[in-house]
Amino acid sequence: MLAENDEAGLRAVANDFHPASVAEFTEGLTVGQIWRVLDYAPLERQALILPYFPPGKQVKLIEGMGREHMTRLIEQMAPDDRADLLARLDPALVESLLPLVAQAERHDIRQLLSYPPDSAGAIMTTEYATLPAEITVSEAMCRLRAQAPDSETIYSIWILDAQRQLLGTVSLRQLVLAKPDILVGQLMQRDVATVRVDESRQQVARTLARYDVLAVPVVDSDGRLVGIVTHDDVMDVVVQEATNEVQRLGAVQPLVENYLEASFVRVWWKRAGWLSCLFVAELLTFSMLAHFEDAMASVLALSLFVPLCISTGGNSGAQAATLVTRAMALGQVENRDTWRVLRHELGMGITLGLTLGVIGFVRAALTPQQVLGNANRWDIALVISQAVAAICLWGTLVGSALPLIFRRLGFDPAFASSPFVATFVDVTGIYIYFHIAQIYVL
Amino acid sequence: MLAENDEAGLRAVANDFHPASVAEFTEGLTVGQIWRVLDYAPLERQALILPYFPPGKQVKLIEGMGREHMTRLIEQMAPDDRADLLARLDPALVESLLPLVAQAERHDIRQLLSYPPDSAGAIMTTEYATLPAEITVSEAMCRLRAQAPDSETIYSIWILDAQRQLLGTVSLRQLVLAKPDILVGQLMQRDVATVRVDESRQQVARTLARYDVLAVPVVDSDGRLVGIVTHDDVMDVVVQEATNEVQRLGAVQPLVENYLEASFVRVWWKRAGWLSCLFVAELLTFSMLAHFEDAMASVLALSLFVPLCISTGGNSGAQAATLVTRAMALGQVENRDTWRVLRHELGMGITLGLTLGVIGFVRAALTPQQVLGNANRWDIALVISQAVAAICLWGTLVGSALPLIFRRLGFDPAFASSPFVATFVDVTGIYIYFHIAQIYVL
Repeated sequence: MLAENDEAGLRAVANDFHPASVAEFTEGLTVGQIWRVLDYAPLERQALILPYFPPGKQVKLIEGMGREHMTRLIEQMAPDDRADLLARLDPALVESLLPLVAQAERHDIRQLLSYPPDSAGAIMTTEYATLPAEITVSEAMCRLRAQAPDSETIYSIWILDAQRQLLGTVSLRQLVLAKPDILVGQLMQRDVATVRVDESRQQVARTLARYDVLAVPVVDSDGRLVGIVTHDDVMDVVVQEATNEVQRLGAVQPLVENYLEASFVRVWWKRAGWLSCLFVAELLTFSMLAHFEDAMASVLALSLFVPLCISTGGNSGAQAATLVTRAMALGQVENRDTWRVLRHELGMGITLGLTLGVIGFVRAALTPQQVLGNANRWDIALVISQAVAAICLWGTLVGSALPLIFRRLGFDPAFASSPFVATFVDVTGIYIYFHIAQIYVL
Repeated sequence: MLAENDEAGLRAVANDFHPASVAEFTEGLTVGQIWRVLDYAPLERQALILPYFPPGKQVKLIEGMGREHMTRLIEQMAPDDRADLLARLDPALVESLLPLVAQAERHDIRQLLSYPPDSAGAIMTTEYATLPAEITVSEAMCRLRAQAPDSETIYSIWILDAQRQLLGTVSLRQLVLAKPDILVGQLMQRDVATVRVDESRQQVARTLARYDVLAVPVVDSDGRLVGIVTHDDVMDVVVQEATNEVQRLGAVQPLVENYLEASFVRVWWKRAGWLSCLFVAELLTFSMLAHFEDAMASVLALSLFVPLCISTGGNSGAQAATLVTRAMALGQVENRDTWRVLRHELGMGITLGLTLGVIGFVRAALTPQQVLGNANRWDIALVISQAVAAICLWGTLVGSALPLIFRRLGFDPAFASSPFVATFVDVTGIYIYFHIAQIYVL
């Protein structure tokens, strides 16, 4: 359509489709081409379409237009989408734009940009519908029509007193179904779950999921309403948190960007950092083995089972760490459950260790004597089965304890990733293995 | 309050708090005690509170009451919560209850129970508001008040023709703000994203997130509306999918239940199955090492570096597998991106391998000669650095390729878990290591 200059077609695309579809269709075009399409739509619609582009593209689109247009568009955007975008722009550019933005928006922008990036304040919007308690339903409907808030923020209406303290909430559904002459205050639900502006965005997500509400009100330390977080922004938080957790568990520093579009050097840095730390830690396996070099020299067959024994610890540790980390993220395991978790994993580690120990015994007993050299078959089988069982138990306990310890120390429990646990158990597993070996064959 | 038989207090708890709070407060009580509280609330409210209990508790609560009460309560519940609950009850009990349930509900229950558990049909509700296109806004409001659908399903209203084909949608906000005499058909948005009833629940989640809507309409193969999936149910899906992915990546069969409350034997089974498979696969490291036993006998120092080299492959593989699996779950990597991902990981594997190779070279070169025995220090350093670099590249390629291959074969890519990749790379890494060693020191 762009090549044919099909004005009617472009106008239809820009105006009639869902904003998400417009962004999807034009995402592959150059910045100049996208603006040729979007210029067929009025400013308010441009402001609706813009947030559906990926964040990097939004920055390029904003930077690719004149300063005047940029300012008007930023004024039109929803407060939360706008704060998101401005947080990614060059701070010098933002500072040069702000004087051009209308007074009310300017204040709002500075306020939202001042919250820590992971707080409720950073993801809330300052656009919402409020009513006093002492008016009737029919008057409430008139006021709502006058406020006519954008988008879905109209469905939860917040009832405030003169000091902006939150008294309760009514839904648009209640107002529509209620008799016109009863008071809003009689209709409202008083037991409203709120979050404070400095609480974490995970807390917002948990509150919304727990109460199945459309929006969570955000209050300041005096209980005054300062914003709301809507369900669609919480969904983004939940997905982003899951991504962070999965990536930490896989020993990558969380990537905010799209995997295929992030810069090579940035991704390299986030991966090489962790891999190098793990590698340096894993060098200790060499030192530990060197310590037992004489034992291996006298019974060479012992060295054949080292990778088997330590990988058992790594696998059982990764499993336990994953289960505990996820249970913590879901709120199923609190700090007070520490001993319960460890008791549970103690029992689990013993039974899992017995299971693997039996398999290990059978395999070692079936080894041809020429491979075992000077070692006695049954001695080796006893060593392997006991070492596997002990290391499996050890890995399970370490894997379940580390996330709990990390949280108590104030770190993200997902740092106790599978590779981290595996490395720790590799080094200590070698020590366990050779100590058991010394009992039987050395 | 129960001990004091404080009737007013119990009545207040059961009736005035948010249903989620009632469930939270009473969760720790016995089934009999919970019913003593809930009996102070009318049936409709009991039906609202019940879905907020954990699934296992819901089953116990239902089984703990008389058949008559059970039937009335099931009729009152929202269709999707009801289908969820009935799917967990003993099928014989459900069959004995169904004849007692009213005709319309019975048909609806049978229909919802017939969809596969991971499909849009299984999570949708059959309760939603519909209107024809050719009525005015004021008539539409009258009809909506008459339908008075429960909860938030009133906010998206679906416009159907006489054959129940979906024509478009209007929001309650639009109706409230519109002039009373214009036609619903003029107001409605035609470009509605739908899902088919047999599509996956992940597809529903992606559609809702992409369009930031409150509910996704579900249609049958003829385009007729059969249900909707609301934002709160999608949130549950997103959390459950993230849990499945994390647990698969950690080599656990996904646990549906709460980690601390699931039965020991079930959890043991889900963990022991994977651990045993990995252990049996890891036995191949023993066979592979036995194959190179002569090499180790002649240069014992070689055996000291085996865990270091193979864990490098495991860590780099886990990292790549995690990144690719997550990018696939987020829809960032499609099947057509396979070659792009592999090219990306080839470059990444080479640079990561060089980084670790340099560290390995330095460490090996600093080893005291007595530990190295009869081996030349610089030969060993060359072997270690090259083996580490090669195995790191190999791990990265295997880790990124396996999830892509698994998806093409129709498996969940998250089965290419860190322990799975690590085990595969352990065995093959030993082969690479000794082949490089043969060039320099054997």
